[in-house]
Amino acid sequence: MKKYAIIVAGGSGQRMGSEVPKQFLLIKGKPLLQYTLQTFLLTYDDLQIILVLPRQQFNYGEQIVKQMDAEERVQIVAGGPTRFHSVQNGLKQITEPAIVFVHDGVRCLVSVPLIQRCYQQALEKGSAIPAVVATDSIRVVEGTTHLTIDRNNIRIVQTPQTFRSDILLAAFKQEYTEAFTDEATVVEAAGNEVFLIEGEHNNLKITRPLDLFIAEKLLEEGFHRQ
Amino acid sequence: MKKYAIIVAGGSGQRMGSEVPKQFLLIKGKPLLQYTLQTFLLTYDDLQIILVLPRQQFNYGEQIVKQMDAEERVQIVAGGPTRFHSVQNGLKQITEPAIVFVHDGVRCLVSVPLIQRCYQQALEKGSAIPAVVATDSIRVVEGTTHLTIDRNNIRIVQTPQTFRSDILLAAFKQEYTEAFTDEATVVEAAGNEVFLIEGEHNNLKITRPLDLFIAEKLLEEGFHRQ
Repeated sequence: MKKYAIIVAGGSGQRMGSEVPKQFLLIKGKPLLQYTLQTFLLTYDDLQIILVLPRQQFNYGEQIVKQMDAEERVQIVAGGPTRFHSVQNGLKQITEPAIVFVHDGVRCLVSVPLIQRCYQQALEKGSAIPAVVATDSIRVVEGTTHLTIDRNNIRIVQTPQTFRSDILLAAFKQEYTEAFTDEATVVEAAGNEVFLIEGEHNNLKITRPLDLFIAEKLLEEGFHRQ
Repeated sequence: MKKYAIIVAGGSGQRMGSEVPKQFLLIKGKPLLQYTLQTFLLTYDDLQIILVLPRQQFNYGEQIVKQMDAEERVQIVAGGPTRFHSVQNGLKQITEPAIVFVHDGVRCLVSVPLIQRCYQQALEKGSAIPAVVATDSIRVVEGTTHLTIDRNNIRIVQTPQTFRSDILLAAFKQEYTEAFTDEATVVEAAGNEVFLIEGEHNNLKITRPLDLFIAEKLLEEGFHRQ
């Protein structure tokens, strides 16, 4: 089936302490976002990317796509005020039945096998939400107090959150609420069950300088190609 | 005030796919546990370490302590069937008022400033539980379903969990229950409030080969001394 990856990259460099938006920070001379795009393009020849960026970052994005010689496979569309609105904008480009991956641009260590497993499960069950078990104890803050949750019951959710296009398109017709923190919550609110799938511990979200350092070391060792 | 660090290191090499218990895996030629011990000894001259190990690992532990020339500051005691029982055994060595750090042996990237901040807060408030905010979305599994929790309300709990000795000793007189997943839960069950403190994102728990790789790179760069 046809495949689309909506790559969402709207972050600022705030927590990085950087002027450059984090998705454009360089790892071994290449913008972080480029690794993400490459892995998706490499996984399936018939996959198209819809790259969602703030308008003021279109230039950056176009340069990357040009450098990758991938103009025919990547189109850039404008982000919205929230993740929900950004994905909604991206979905406007999808008019045929497909499997749709929605992925954080800054998860540049996503692997080919993870993308393939998500595709297979979404095809069979309608969705695939990669998640890993927690290593550390977890507490939930409620007002001024906080409670421990059994870490065996905790799943740390990653992307690509992957869906059959009919399910995802219908869900994104809903009116936005603040509870829509990721695509899974949107699809659930539309009355669908979502199905988890085993994620990968190296599928890091690059948020802080520490993550950038780690990503660099992992990319050097080729962890994203294992 | 007098200071004790109970370093708990009872893990196997199971998730590492290794015969060697993970606390003894080498990073740059030194057992992981040695980095942990060193940082605590370095932070305070008047700190004593109570190293809790399974009996069959006493030999390993004694070698490390000897190599560090730290026989006078580190004593080794036997672990129990659970974390609770291991810490309980360690606490038997503490007979004077003190601040007590309870720390995972495999968190070898713990920093001097984190230990110092935990000490200060435990002195003032009775406890200090280091925790960081979550970067990823979190789901809680309940039976066959799972629910998203707002990640802004999630804290990922680390160690050293730090307490005034009177509070900790009293709490560990309770009968064991399975709800005692860390020291904070034990102290809470005894009727005390516990107080969180900002942890550090590089204070990793070394559980998987990926973590060991990351720890090696961070130690090479001296992240634990920043």
